[in-house]
Amino acid sequence: EDLVYFLPFTLSHIEWDEIEIDLTTRIYMDCNATTPLEPEVIQAISEALQDAWGNPSSNYIAGAKAKATINQARENVARMVGGKAEDIIFTSGGTEANNLVLHTALEHFRTSCRAAEQREGHRNGSSGLPHIITSNVEHDSVKLVAEHLQKDGEADVTYVPVSKGTARVEVEDIMAAVRPNTCLISVMLANNETGVIMPVQEICQRVKSLNKRPERLRILLHTDAAQALGKIRVDACELGVDYLTIVGHKFYAPRIGALFVNGPGRRTPLYPMLFGGGQERNFRPGTENTPMIAGLGKAAELVTSNLSDYESHMRTTKLYLEERLKAVFNGKIRFNSHFPGADILPNTCNVSILGPTLQGWRVLSNCRRLLASVGAACHSDSGNRPSHVLLSCGVPPEVAANALRLSVGRATTKADVDAVVEDLKETVQLLEEMN
Amino acid sequence: EDLVYFLPFTLSHIEWDEIEIDLTTRIYMDCNATTPLEPEVIQAISEALQDAWGNPSSNYIAGAKAKATINQARENVARMVGGKAEDIIFTSGGTEANNLVLHTALEHFRTSCRAAEQREGHRNGSSGLPHIITSNVEHDSVKLVAEHLQKDGEADVTYVPVSKGTARVEVEDIMAAVRPNTCLISVMLANNETGVIMPVQEICQRVKSLNKRPERLRILLHTDAAQALGKIRVDACELGVDYLTIVGHKFYAPRIGALFVNGPGRRTPLYPMLFGGGQERNFRPGTENTPMIAGLGKAAELVTSNLSDYESHMRTTKLYLEERLKAVFNGKIRFNSHFPGADILPNTCNVSILGPTLQGWRVLSNCRRLLASVGAACHSDSGNRPSHVLLSCGVPPEVAANALRLSVGRATTKADVDAVVEDLKETVQLLEEMN
Repeated sequence: EDLVYFLPFTLSHIEWDEIEIDLTTRIYMDCNATTPLEPEVIQAISEALQDAWGNPSSNYIAGAKAKATINQARENVARMVGGKAEDIIFTSGGTEANNLVLHTALEHFRTSCRAAEQREGHRNGSSGLPHIITSNVEHDSVKLVAEHLQKDGEADVTYVPVSKGTARVEVEDIMAAVRPNTCLISVMLANNETGVIMPVQEICQRVKSLNKRPERLRILLHTDAAQALGKIRVDACELGVDYLTIVGHKFYAPRIGALFVNGPGRRTPLYPMLFGGGQERNFRPGTENTPMIAGLGKAAELVTSNLSDYESHMRTTKLYLEERLKAVFNGKIRFNSHFPGADILPNTCNVSILGPTLQGWRVLSNCRRLLASVGAACHSDSGNRPSHVLLSCGVPPEVAANALRLSVGRATTKADVDAVVEDLKETVQLLEEMN
Repeated sequence: EDLVYFLPFTLSHIEWDEIEIDLTTRIYMDCNATTPLEPEVIQAISEALQDAWGNPSSNYIAGAKAKATINQARENVARMVGGKAEDIIFTSGGTEANNLVLHTALEHFRTSCRAAEQREGHRNGSSGLPHIITSNVEHDSVKLVAEHLQKDGEADVTYVPVSKGTARVEVEDIMAAVRPNTCLISVMLANNETGVIMPVQEICQRVKSLNKRPERLRILLHTDAAQALGKIRVDACELGVDYLTIVGHKFYAPRIGALFVNGPGRRTPLYPMLFGGGQERNFRPGTENTPMIAGLGKAAELVTSNLSDYESHMRTTKLYLEERLKAVFNGKIRFNSHFPGADILPNTCNVSILGPTLQGWRVLSNCRRLLASVGAACHSDSGNRPSHVLLSCGVPPEVAANALRLSVGRATTKADVDAVVEDLKETVQLLEEMN
């Protein structure tokens, strides 16, 4: 009977009206996949939909209103990441922002090579391929771009493995991978599955020393901060990155994003992927999505004002969740988000309940109330293969196969935690009896 | 005193609160720049913001709800352009859709060349550059991509000039430009400034005969339908195009877009520009902007249901506008949207009031009520240079400099027209007296 809650992976043939499950009894613990929108964010979007629909490029009052809305949002987003308004380029989302960075690195390499050839007064033939360094636990919007460039013979890529002890990419391993042609290092600020925070600041410090050498091709520094924003303090200047990816729907904002660029086109190169009407100073043309930008700005403002409250609430809630899980499942669980010496996002609990029939997908599809995932949402069609991220972090395959990623949010309560742990307890009992 | 209504081109230093002009007295006649959102569209967006915020890739009910919302919208958008749901790829807007087509054409050329080399069992060296044909009055999101590819030595481009008699690109001129390496013909369906409708169907018919020749590299066919949708009937299959660009904010939908592709990846090649989480069948990854997609779907549904009403209302209103202008300004005006034998969008009136002090920007910045433009919004910073589109259509420079693009919409009334004509009359009087 409990199996009626299972939803098939492909839903395209199901009419929504046929699905009659009462959502109000469900408890959402998948905030690393996406978050609901804050009411104030919805309000900002709604106001812009009504009042700021003019074309921001139009030279009259309706355009001016839209332009003012966008400028205000740009300032708020900049403040959230410790940058200036001019450092923010709005994009359609994190995927586009990440792609734009890798595209820019290649163009930067080509331009630098051409400049060097001209300085030396001759063409010294091929300078070899540009080289990109990244980790082996990045999001697909970095990983698959790198793989594509590699496959097309446009770049060499080193995927530095994270340490199986700490689940972090280690600074020394990154530095050891640097070559003369290295043009970009891209390391996520926090991992979406384990919540592990990466040593981005230390990497940037080391690379900046290297960049001072006169003959050295400048290595550009990027971090995808999708999972960190709204959960921990993020300051692009303190980190020392050239680029930082901002993804609205991970911090209660709508589905757009932005790229922080430290002085775009001046201190830091930025080469557009799209050409068109000149918006975003030609770095990212296309008529601006004013309402979504307004929402992103409002959500950024909320983060700037309330981060420490959000963070401590999520941390308290997660610690309570971990305590309750330990108390109920005793020796039968393993946390895949506990690594000695590693800092972890305040909201992320990755846990495996041990047992031969307790694969993550099986547990989740039998839970009555819990909504969570086994890993990245965009890998949801990979079925029951264990997460490559967890395997890379040294989690044994039979443990990784049982992993549940529970990511709490601003609104998750202790009562929610109690209900979820009870739900898990009953589900595990059912699955063990069925065996 | 009237000059207080003039807004400077750069507004970044102005606080919105300082601008105290009563918007309710203004009359918007710039629907080719952007349109307000229909109340039902705002409603659809608001509902999705509240109820369909789940990650569409998530394997549970919140994800399923979002996925169902997206699928419904995909069907509605497909129906609007006479395609199937699978033919619709959602993009961030028209700029991205147009860029994606030109990117695809180049990849298609490279892939075809490699395949031909393999068939012939040898590498016969360079096959030369891919060749793209377009018109000389395209939107910047086609024109500037083509120029960029040309400048980078990645493609040859022929900009076929429109006829100075009809303002249309002529079928014979397009066919005469075809070369062995031609891989794409991209011609807009209707021009944004003159409203002239291009002979896309005839071009497609001619090219399809050509494409049947066994040794012929397939020429891909694209039309940017940004200005046509919601104004005239558009059927991608009847037109015979492989790709058709859809831009939400021109038909009372939000600021996203879509690309119609006739059987993407099967009958028609499509090569992604972005790599990431696999959304849109890997053709356009990135977590879906569910609320905006829902709004686009609702707006498409409205167009499918009400197009003939919209069209006849706009045509009646525009004809009344032209009559009134003729009556008031008598011999002193010239219509830049009247060309013998050319079909014109039902909503677009491009008119010049003749006189040495009546430049378009000067007239508009002194009007008390009219909100309109002198050309494309994204060219609004080009100041008082006459539109290159009008010059290309054979409009004399001194007439083009005075052009006003008046584009009416679903809500424009005869009373609005009367008020605008009165406003123009007073403004012209003022400017002539000042002289």
